[in-house]
Order: sequence, then C-alpha cells, then structure tokens
Amino acid sequence: MSKAVVGIIMGSQSDLKVMKEAAEFLEELKVPFELTVVSAHRTPQRMVDYASSARSRGLKVIVAGAGGAAHLPGMVASLTSLPVIGVPIKSSNSIDGWDSVLSILQMPAGVPVATVALNGAKNAGILAAQMLANHDKTLAKRLDAFKANLKKKVEESFEAIERKGWKNVS
Amino acid sequence: MSKAVVGIIMGSQSDLKVMKEAAEFLEELKVPFELTVVSAHRTPQRMVDYASSARSRGLKVIVAGAGGAAHLPGMVASLTSLPVIGVPIKSSNSIDGWDSVLSILQMPAGVPVATVALNGAKNAGILAAQMLANHDKTLAKRLDAFKANLKKKVEESFEAIERKGWKNVS
Amino acid sequence: MSKAVVGIIMGSQSDLKVMKEAAEFLEELKVPFELTVVSAHRTPQRMVDYASSARSRGLKVIVAGAGGAAHLPGMVASLTSLPVIGVPIKSSNSIDGWDSVLSILQMPAGVPVATVALNGAKNAGILAAQMLANHDKTLAKRLDAFKANLKKKVEESFEAIERKGWKNVS
Amino acid sequence: MSKAVVGIIMGSQSDLKVMKEAAEFLEELKVPFELTVVSAHRTPQRMVDYASSARSRGLKVIVAGAGGAAHLPGMVASLTSLPVIGVPIKSSNSIDGWDSVLSILQMPAGVPVATVALNGAKNAGILAAQMLANHDKTLAKRLDAFKANLKKKVEESFEAIERKGWKNVS
Amino acid sequence: MSKAVVGIIMGSQSDLKVMKEAAEFLEELKVPFELTVVSAHRTPQRMVDYASSARSRGLKVIVAGAGGAAHLPGMVASLTSLPVIGVPIKSSNSIDGWDSVLSILQMPAGVPVATVALNGAKNAGILAAQMLANHDKTLAKRLDAFKANLKKKVEESFEAIERKGWKNVS
Amino acid sequence: MSKAVVGIIMGSQSDLKVMKEAAEFLEELKVPFELTVVSAHRTPQRMVDYASSARSRGLKVIVAGAGGAAHLPGMVASLTSLPVIGVPIKSSNSIDGWDSVLSILQMPAGVPVATVALNGAKNAGILAAQMLANHDKTLAKRLDAFKANLKKKVEESFEAIERKGWKNVS
Amino acid sequence: MSKAVVGIIMGSQSDLKVMKEAAEFLEELKVPFELTVVSAHRTPQRMVDYASSARSRGLKVIVAGAGGAAHLPGMVASLTSLPVIGVPIKSSNSIDGWDSVLSILQMPAGVPVATVALNGAKNAGILAAQMLANHDKTLAKRLDAFKANLKKKVEESFEAIERKGWKNVS
Amino acid sequence: MSKAVVGIIMGSQSDLKVMKEAAEFLEELKVPFELTVVSAHRTPQRMVDYASSARSRGLKVIVAGAGGAAHLPGMVASLTSLPVIGVPIKSSNSIDGWDSVLSILQMPAGVPVATVALNGAKNAGILAAQMLANHDKTLAKRLDAFKANLKKKVEESFEAIERKGWKNVS
Repeated sequence: MSKAVVGIIMGSQSDLKVMKEAAEFLEELKVPFELTVVSAHRTPQRMVDYASSARSRGLKVIVAGAGGAAHLPGMVASLTSLPVIGVPIKSSNSIDGWDSVLSILQMPAGVPVATVALNGAKNAGILAAQMLANHDKTLAKRLDAFKANLKKKVEESFEAIERKGWKNVS
Repeated sequence: MSKAVVGIIMGSQSDLKVMKEAAEFLEELKVPFELTVVSAHRTPQRMVDYASSARSRGLKVIVAGAGGAAHLPGMVASLTSLPVIGVPIKSSNSIDGWDSVLSILQMPAGVPVATVALNGAKNAGILAAQMLANHDKTLAKRLDAFKANLKKKVEESFEAIERKGWKNVS
Repeated sequence: MSKAVVGIIMGSQSDLKVMKEAAEFLEELKVPFELTVVSAHRTPQRMVDYASSARSRGLKVIVAGAGGAAHLPGMVASLTSLPVIGVPIKSSNSIDGWDSVLSILQMPAGVPVATVALNGAKNAGILAAQMLANHDKTLAKRLDAFKANLKKKVEESFEAIERKGWKNVS
Repeated sequence: MSKAVVGIIMGSQSDLKVMKEAAEFLEELKVPFELTVVSAHRTPQRMVDYASSARSRGLKVIVAGAGGAAHLPGMVASLTSLPVIGVPIKSSNSIDGWDSVLSILQMPAGVPVATVALNGAKNAGILAAQMLANHDKTLAKRLDAFKANLKKKVEESFEAIERKGWKNVS
Repeated sequence: MSKAVVGIIMGSQSDLKVMKEAAEFLEELKVPFELTVVSAHRTPQRMVDYASSARSRGLKVIVAGAGGAAHLPGMVASLTSLPVIGVPIKSSNSIDGWDSVLSILQMPAGVPVATVALNGAKNAGILAAQMLANHDKTLAKRLDAFKANLKKKVEESFEAIERKGWKNVS
Repeated sequence: MSKAVVGIIMGSQSDLKVMKEAAEFLEELKVPFELTVVSAHRTPQRMVDYASSARSRGLKVIVAGAGGAAHLPGMVASLTSLPVIGVPIKSSNSIDGWDSVLSILQMPAGVPVATVALNGAKNAGILAAQMLANHDKTLAKRLDAFKANLKKKVEESFEAIERKGWKNVS
Repeated sequence: MSKAVVGIIMGSQSDLKVMKEAAEFLEELKVPFELTVVSAHRTPQRMVDYASSARSRGLKVIVAGAGGAAHLPGMVASLTSLPVIGVPIKSSNSIDGWDSVLSILQMPAGVPVATVALNGAKNAGILAAQMLANHDKTLAKRLDAFKANLKKKVEESFEAIERKGWKNVS
Repeated sequence: MSKAVVGIIMGSQSDLKVMKEAAEFLEELKVPFELTVVSAHRTPQRMVDYASSARSRGLKVIVAGAGGAAHLPGMVASLTSLPVIGVPIKSSNSIDGWDSVLSILQMPAGVPVATVALNGAKNAGILAAQMLANHDKTLAKRLDAFKANLKKKVEESFEAIERKGWKNVS
C-alpha cells in the first residue's frame, strides 16, 4: 500500500469494533491509511509524538475515536494543524453517549474538531475522503460513485415495496 | 478577491452575528470565500441549486450554520460530495441549543457533516482552512502562525498573573 | 383501492417496522393511501419531486417518519403546503431518540410539522384520518367507533380486575 | 366574522402573549376562529364541555397551548375526534421547556396531538389553515402566497448582503 | 375487608406490574384500598366520575400511576381536593421515563401532585399510609415496624459481609 | 397561634424567597406551622434532632425545600415516619434545576418523599393542607373554597377576553 | 492486615458488585481498608456514627457509593472533615444514572465530595491511594507501577494490531 | 510564602473569576499554593511540562478548572500520579454546563479526576486542604474551625428568623 494519508486512531482496542468502519470505507475507496491505538490518558506522550509528527510523516487527515470523557480528538487537534475528525463512541459506562459527544464537540474557539454522529466511524471515513478528493479527481469519482450507490439502495427499497407490497417487505 | 473556495451559508440573516466569525477568520487568513443566506425550509430550491453547483463553481468546502431543527448542513451534504462543516446556532426558541446540535450532528451513515461546537463559527472557519492547507503551503504557514498566536495569548495571561499577582488580574 | 389521499413515506426501509402501524390504521379505516421510501439524504431529488407533486397527485396529508438527524418531515413540509405529520423514530445509533424528536419538532416559524410521539406511527395515521374526517362523515363515524373501542378495552381491563381480583390479572 | 372553524385555547391568560401569534396568522388568512382560556387543572369541567361540544359547534380544528405539566392539549384530544394541535409553552418555572414539550408530545397510541415547536403558536395557526385548505381553494391560495412571501424575505436578505456586503448587514 | 380509604388507579392494565407494589404494601399494613384502571385519555368521563366522587365514597388518598404523557395524576388532582400521589411509569416508548416524570411532577401552582420516583409504586403506598397514620395509631405503629425492618435488613447485610468477608457475599 | 402541625424547613436562608409561598398559603388557610432553617450538610445533627422529635412535638407533616444536591427532604424522611413533602429549588449554580429535582424525587424504595414541581412551594403548602383536611372539616371547606377561587380566576380571564377582545388583554 | 486507613461504604449490598473494584484495587496496592454497608436512608444513625468516628478510628479517606437519590457521600462529607470520594452507581430504577451523578456531584459550597465517573469505583480506589501516597513513598511507587502498566496494556494493543493487522484483532 | 503544595491551574484567564475562590480558601487556611493559566488546547506542551514536573516541584495536589470540552483536568491526571481535582466551569457557549461536567467527570478506569460541582472552585480548595490535613494537624484544626463556622452561619439564619419572624427576613 502507498504511504498513509489518513491516520485512524482510537483510545482503546475495544473501540476497534466501531472504528473499523472508517478503515473499511477508506480501503474500499483505495485511500491509504494507518490504524493504531493511542490513548490520551494512558499514553499521553505517545499521543504528543503521534500528533506532532503527523504532518511530517505525510498524513493529511486524522480520524480519532474515543468514548466517555473523550479527550483524544481534541488533544490531537491541539498538537497539529491537520484537520482532525472526532468520532464519539458509546462505551460501556457512558451516560448514554452524551459524555463522549460533548467532550469531543464542544471544543473552544481556536481548536476545532470535525465531529460526526455517535458511533459514526463510517461517516468519519467518508469525510476524510471528501477532504482529500479536492485534489484527487480519481477519489472524487469514487465518492460520486459511492453517493450514487446510496441512492440506488433506496431505489431498491421502494421498488421492492412496490413489487411485493408493503406488507410483504420486512 | 480571487474566486471563492469556501462557501459560507446560513439559514437566516439573524444567524449572521454568529456566522461572521467564520468569515472574519477566512478573511484574516486570506482564503477567498463567498457568504449568503440559503434557507432549507424557506428556499429549498435555492438550496438544491446552491449545493448542486458548488463544486463546479469552484468551491472546495461549504460551511453551513443553522438553528432549531437545523436541516441546512445535512441537506447540503446530501446534495454535494464536497466536505460540509455544520455550525449549530442557539436561536431564540431553541431548547438550549440541543435541537440544533442534534439535528446537525446525528447524520445517518453515508452523509457526514463535520459538526463544530454550538455557535462555533470561528472553528468552522479554521477547519475549512485546515482542509485547504493540505495543498496550500502559504495557508499552512498562516495556520501555524495562528496556532502560535493562540499560545502567545495564554503566555500573556500567565505572565500577567505572575507579574501582577492573581488578585490583580480581572 | 381508490386514489391515495394520504402519502406515507419514511427515510429507510428499516423504518417500516414502525411506520406500518400508520398504514394498518388507515387500511382499517378504509382511507386510501400510498407508502414508499424517500430519503432526504440519499435521494434528495426524489424527495423534492415527491413533495412538489403531492397536491397535484391528489394527496391531502403526508405522514413522514425518520430517525436520527431526521430531515425528511421538515424538508417535505418546506416543499408543499399540505399538512405534514412527522414521526420521530428511535433508530439504532440514536441518542435515546432525542435527535429524531428535536430535529422534527423544532421547525422554524413558517414551516410547521405536526409531530407525534417517538415511534408514534399509529397516532400519525389517526391524525391523518382526523384531518380528512372534517369533510367525510363516514370516516368521522369510523373514527368515533375507533374511539369508542379504545374505551371498551379499558372497560374490559377494569372488569377483568374486578372479576378476577388484581392479583390474578397479569 | 363568520362562524369559527378553529378554536384557540390556552391554559392561562399569561399564555396569550405566545398564543396570539396563532390568532394573528388565522386573522391574516381570514380563517374564522374563536379564542379563550380553558384550564385543564383549574376548570376541568369547562374543558370537558368545550371539547365535547366542539364539533357540534362547528369547529374543525382545535389549537391548544399550555406550559409545565401541560395536560390541556392531550385531554382535549381525548374528548373529541377533531384534530388537536398542541403548542408547548415555556413558562416561568418550566425546566427549560422540556416538561411542556414532553407532556404534549408523548401521547399514548390512540389519542394523537399534533405537536409543534416550543412556543410555536404561529406554526400551529399555519397547520390549522393547512388542514382546512384541503377543502377551501381560496385558503389554499393564501397559504401559497404566504409560502411565497417566506421565500421573498430570504431573497431580500441575500440581496441585501450582496448589495451592502456582509460586514454592513446587521 | 373494610371500606377502601385509598384508591389505586392506573392508566392501563400494563401498568399493573409496577402499581401492584403499592397494593401489596397497603395490604401488608392492613390499609383497605381499591384498585382499578382509569384512563385519562381513553375514558375521560370515567376519570371525572372517579375523582369527583372519591371523597364522598370514603377515599382519603388517591394513588395514580401512568406512563408517557402521563395526565391521570394531575387531572385527578384537578377534580378532587384529596391528596393525590403520582407514580411515573417507564413505559415502552417512553423517552427514558423523562416524559412521565415531568408530566406528573411539574404541575402548576394550585394543583399539587405528590410525585414519587420513577416506577416508585411501593413508595406511593408507604406515603399513603403515612398520611393516614396521623390519625391511626395502630397504622403508625405498623409503619414504625416497617421502618425498623428496613434497618434490620441493612444490619443483616453488613453482618453478612463481616462474617463471610466482602469477597464471599454476592 | 396554636401549636404547629406543619414544619417548614429549608437548607439555607436564601431559599426563603421560594419557601415563603408555602408559609403564606398555610397562613391563609389558618393551618398552624413553624418555619426554620435546617441544613443537611452544615447542621446535620440539628437535622437529626429536628426530624426525630417532629412527631412528638406535634407535627403531622414536614415540608422541606433545598437546591443543588438536595439531601434535606430525603434525610428527614429517613428519620421520621411523618409524611415529608420535598420542594426542589433552582439555586444559583444548579444545572437548570435537574440536580435538585432528581436528588429529591428519586428516593429508594422504603423512604418516600412527596415531591412537587421545581420551586413549587405553594403546592407543597396545599398538599400539606390536603393531608390534614382528611380529619379537619373546616380546613377541607377552606380548601374547597381555594379550589373554587382558582376556577373563578380563570373565569375572570375568559370573561375579560370576551368583553375586551383578545387583542386588548395583556 | 494493618489498621484500615480507607473506609469503603455503600448504600446497599447490591452496590457491592460495583464497589468491590475499589476494594480490589486497594488490596492490590496493599492499602489497608474496611468495607461495609451504611445506608443514609435506612440506617441514618449508623451513618452518623460511622462518619463521626471515622477520623478517630484511624481512617484517612472515605469512599462512598450509592445509586438513585444518592445522599450517602454528601451526608458523610457533612459529618467528617476527612476527604470523601463519591461513586455514583447506576441502579435499576435510575433515570440513566443522572440522578445518582447529580445528587453526589452538585454539593453546596463548604462540603465537597470528590466525585468519580458513573460506576467508577476503581477510580475511587486509585484516588484514595493517590491521596495517601503523598506521605507514603512505597505506595507512590506502586501507583507509578500501576500507571506504567496502564501504558503497557496500550502498547500491547497497538503491537497486536501491527503484528496481526487491524482486521484480525477483535 | 512557603513553597507551594497545591497547584491551581485553569484553561483560560476568563476562568479566574470562578477559580479564585479556591485560591482565597487556601489563603484563608494558610495552605501555600501557586496559581497560573495552562491551556490543554492552546499550550499542550506547557501542560505536559507542568504536570510532569508537579511532584518533583513539591506539589501534593493539583486543582484544575476548565469549561466546554474541558480536557485540562483529565490530561493533567494522565501525566502525574498526584491527586487531581477538577472544577467544571460554565463558560459562555457551554450547553448549560453539561459539556464541562461530563468531560471532566467521566474519566476512564485508571485515571481518576476528583470532580466537584459546576463552578465549585471553593469546594476544590476545601478538598485539597482535606487531603493535606491528614498529615498536618494545624491544618486539620483550621478545617474543623471552618466547618464549625458553616454551622454557625446556619444558626444565625434560624435565630434571625426566630427573632424577627420569617416575614421580616429577606
């Protein structure tokens, strides 16, 4: 694979079941990425190193997922001027996901995190690709194809309903 | 001014007092942008036209702000594959801003909106610049200078406290 | 069946398990309706077409259900002056349904959506029938019969308790 | 004025400052209405009488506004099969309006209330007119004109911005 | 059994699995009560009759449980000057119980409902007994014995921990 | 004044501006009461003494108001078997009153607190009177008169609207 | 075991499944502790005795866990000047844990409770150890070792991902 | 002043109006402290340096206050094994303080932050003193005196009410 342009990181290995959707999407669109675990609270120095060297290592976007008092996306954003996409994760002792959403979204003026929906790792992957597609026409075309496919699946739905009747579609 | 690469739109003229912070930031960093009012609910066709033609008109990022049941950012994202940054705005009859935050953030898989904090228009401007800076070294330097300045203001704060004593700093 | 006067739409086929309660009620009351999938975010043009042509196709009420950042009901309301009933749906990554409720309910002045309870598709069907019954005496009688039946079920409950004793009623 | 077809009621005289927006809209669209105070908690018998006789008195829609533990819209809906539109009102000791929103919106299956946004009395008026316009072409035209006017105001906004520049528009 | 002094009512038979805890407590303390289903929304006239005649039929306290937009306790309180105890019930489509809690608790000045915790039917029974015990010394003694027993169970807990060690107590 | 039968207590003198409404109501209905400050957190022993001796001093009901992490009502309820009415108070650093509401309402099984609305001290006074009126016919009549007066004020409202027109009533 | 310096208490034996994590951590770090059940609401006098004698019995920190309207941590803090750590517990009828969190966290000025995350008993144990480690170098070293181990587990995670590939790590 | 044992830090100079209450309390109790501004997001390296060197510089407790997506307390806790007390601050664009509360409180297992109430800086100061008082008898006495004074102020309140009557106390 070519050199990673997207870095996907998460606070804990248990977040992988959510975050892999970002990886799968980028893989599907042939966007080279790297994926690892970086914990703001358990490996703060690793986080500093990861974020500080990100641009020079060739990354163009960072996707960071975390649950509970989720500090990883915001701290990474404070350590690089690359765009950082934050994925709130609903973890086990979360208060319904509110903790993760608010501690990623509500960043102070000066240090943005592009926040996506709770557990919205796939959308984080899409957003990363959209950022890159501005200077990559092939990728832009793949994104358009993806968007066309979203539409196609809806068409299949309503055609199935029309064909079978709404009572016979589960 | 050169051709706009960022489009700043908002649902109502009353949102301008919040959204102008995005414009001011982009102006400061010399990023060409356009700014207008597009209402999802009152001018839906204008919204469709705006979003559908955005890429061909040269835009690379769209910043969309709205309050209450805020559909503008998500609908624009459904109509273009450019990255869309959403700014939740706390409007007058809002339920503490929750309505705007949730109706922008919680987009379904397939159609991301890069959401920033409530009233966080400045961060939306910064995020737009970060996306563009990946292919614009001059802009990247301006962003680094901005980041350095954030740090400098904190330094001024703690130096003032050191110099004057915490009781004499308001 | 005669020409549909109610249009039941939903953002995704997975919403059908909730939305079919609206269809079942209308069927029971012999109100002709149509049911299909229209996604605000994945098929925006289809949504525009559906809503714009609704009145001329003979619809008198639209029932629209969606989950998460639910834009379908509000966008349809912006595209037609028919009354639109919105059904918030508690989908899988929803934040307890709050996202769907608020993004349907909190519409700005000028563009109302008649919102019912979370997952309240049956009530949406009843409300649609109530709107139509103002000019359809047969339907009005069916609604009265339905209301009488609600009462009857409560009567059966308290009679069962009286007859069997509260300890023996599950 | 001709015989009222819409009944606007509210739980307390203090709600009039919100609810009069429904009245003003109906007056503007020449829809005959009546307006009074009916308290679920302080005049329950009056509420029963009002709702039970509504249809026979010629009403076709009821708009009911209330704050706090707002029982008026739901109780009226239980007493008539006319469509009932509920307006949650943010009153003084309200918990941010949540009490009023939830006690109007979350009606059980069988007894719908068409709920609009917090303090959304104008939208309640519009919704009432939309219901009536299905059998009143003149009214339907007035609604279309109202909708066109919404659009026009947005156009004035963006033209002002274009003409004066975004810095000179307040 | 002697004549009922407490009336236990609920909006739906499905609430019985929660509300029976009130009945069981009163039975244990030998307080005569009646239990039935009264729906504010489906049998409003029955509710008016029940509440209006409550005092003359010998009731001294009413315990009313309901879920969702829970209007039963407040409406009963508006129809009698007996003390009314409200039990919020977390029903299936409830928004985490908040709807039921707020629509029972947030009654306007003039018409109180003595609200207990979500699903707190046992506490409603205890509260009813406490109100009656002011003029019934035998009942007061039973309440004291109940309170002593609460304490005893805690003592058994900490004695078990002491005896077996905390690792061996599940 | 005769011997107090209601004890009104509050966690802080600053709560008096809310809690005096309970006192004023009881005074109006000629129910003898006492009023003082008892802080669960600053004078815990005084709280124990107050609650433990309440019944023997002749009290029949306790009304307790507190803000924030409001422990006074629940702790008093744990120390006496008199009925305790809790008044959540929205204090300065409260999180919108939710802290006070939840820490009074959500008592565990065995120890009820009869909770009224946020800042609902008047309703606490009424509830106390309703409990006492079961064995005091004069008081019961005064409560009925109070209830009749609530109704009369609504009648004055709608008569004013009828007489002056809704546009001329503020 | 040496004399306990930490007292772990909880409102109910059912809280032990959460609170034992505090005990296990202290055991692992060889900090002597005691553990028992003390209920604010069911054994208030025992709570007063426990807290009042805590310092003289040699305790240096108290860890108190409770659910619902959780008064134990705050009341204990009012009765001793030892530092008190509060653990909010999500119990069965809790409103998503908010009740417990807010009734422990929102203590008034003068009486702090050091609150940890919902169900965060392990963190309460760590915090207690951190307080003691200021005067216990051996304990400080054990805490450093614990912290190093946290880091090591993250390292194992990312090494596993590197070695096996992200698709093969569950 | 002797060498600081408590470090008071905050994310922004604007937090000083809240955080100075911690400083004032420690000053009153003669606990040597230092106070400065350290921003997690704007001066991340300064934060790393501050926290990493804290113990070796003689600090025994850190009090950290921040608003919005408040990462300072948690990040400092990740960088030192000193006890860290977190003060959530309700800043201007905060969503009612929830963002700050949850992003400080909900720390993952392994890295505790001792969280106090929203804007509860005084309590943070008290808690810091309580931790230190375990090995400082003079400080312990001062804390006891402070606690006695809390009680005295309540006594003055209820004596004023007794002397002047509740109607004459504001």
